[in-house]
Amino acid sequence: MSTLTNSPSVLEGVAPAEFGIGARITVAIAGDDGSELARAVLGAPADGLLVTADDVSIHVTGPEDRLLTYLVAILHAAGGSGRAVTAAVQLSRGCPGGVTCALPPGGAVFWSEVPRLAATGVRARAQWALYPLDDGGHGNADHMRDIYAVIEEGERRGTVREVRNYVTTLEGDLSEVFETVGAAWIVAGRSVQHVATHLTLWINAPSVPDGVRTALAVGDRR
Amino acid sequence: MSTLTNSPSVLEGVAPAEFGIGARITVAIAGDDGSELARAVLGAPADGLLVTADDVSIHVTGPEDRLLTYLVAILHAAGGSGRAVTAAVQLSRGCPGGVTCALPPGGAVFWSEVPRLAATGVRARAQWALYPLDDGGHGNADHMRDIYAVIEEGERRGTVREVRNYVTTLEGDLSEVFETVGAAWIVAGRSVQHVATHLTLWINAPSVPDGVRTALAVGDRR
Repeated sequence: MSTLTNSPSVLEGVAPAEFGIGARITVAIAGDDGSELARAVLGAPADGLLVTADDVSIHVTGPEDRLLTYLVAILHAAGGSGRAVTAAVQLSRGCPGGVTCALPPGGAVFWSEVPRLAATGVRARAQWALYPLDDGGHGNADHMRDIYAVIEEGERRGTVREVRNYVTTLEGDLSEVFETVGAAWIVAGRSVQHVATHLTLWINAPSVPDGVRTALAVGDRR
Repeated sequence: MSTLTNSPSVLEGVAPAEFGIGARITVAIAGDDGSELARAVLGAPADGLLVTADDVSIHVTGPEDRLLTYLVAILHAAGGSGRAVTAAVQLSRGCPGGVTCALPPGGAVFWSEVPRLAATGVRARAQWALYPLDDGGHGNADHMRDIYAVIEEGERRGTVREVRNYVTTLEGDLSEVFETVGAAWIVAGRSVQHVATHLTLWINAPSVPDGVRTALAVGDRR
């Protein structure tokens, strides 16, 4: 599903991993001794992906559609048990950070279609931040217009619940949450070389207990 | 401890909250019915801070030193129980995102000292990403030089363990981890208006079970 484009510059024969297209995910399942997470991770479809793990997160690289499908499958299995699940997800492209990739100059981008993901029946609530880090001097107009279009579609579908300080709160089927986040990351990446996005996600329970929310008083921007 | 500077532009009479200096934290404590988290959050010192909560995260604004002390206190109490704890932390300045603040033009910055934090005796392992989003046309030299100095200090102290794709892995006392992350965020903020940083953190257990790591094969960059 991923293809290359000659705008703003040609990038022939480059695979998603070489362009630094990948994700990290950390998942905690309430009451799990590790076996539930192992079942969820090892059962997720990893065809066409490179998956490794360290003692903080699982790292996966490959085409965006397979990568998003893989993340949703892990969380679908984890959340399908009915246990409370929390996850931190990072999507990245263009190799920002210490481990860089040899990208051609001129702000070359990797162009991909926005995938549709199969519904899971598992609802998630999440807070999401998107960082277009470097537009290679090509200006911001295109990627902001495209990101706004993604957010407007999310609002129409009810997935985009509210804008808060530093984040947007999303709610819906896991597939809808990851479609919105994935679409913004992909369309920003059509004109911006380095794009990172972070998602803090909760399934089956409020991440902040009602008692804490009452004691702290919920902000008035809801 | 926070002060204002006239470089690159004067910002008089602006409070940290008005400049969008704040954090979000989501914490999961294994086996907790909500009471452990409530105890940890409500026991943390919130003097001089504005704290609110929604159903995904706790949002806190105020001077950086108090803000970092508050986050460490929550995790110190949560991790001190010996239970496995995972957390997603976002630090932000300059109001990127949908809820903006009325910042003056010209890339004005909010200048702060780097705080030292009291040791907790609780060790944490984390993966960290730093995003200097907008340097207001002032160039990158100063903030990259200052960020490298922070990372070199973290390496000398042993807090900076390794550089991986998209993230740096940190390990040490909670205070050391937050000093490194906070210092980079603050020194980047001396010359960059919008700076966001994300931390996925684990206490008392590996976030990825050994069985999963063996099955997936740990990457060769450790």
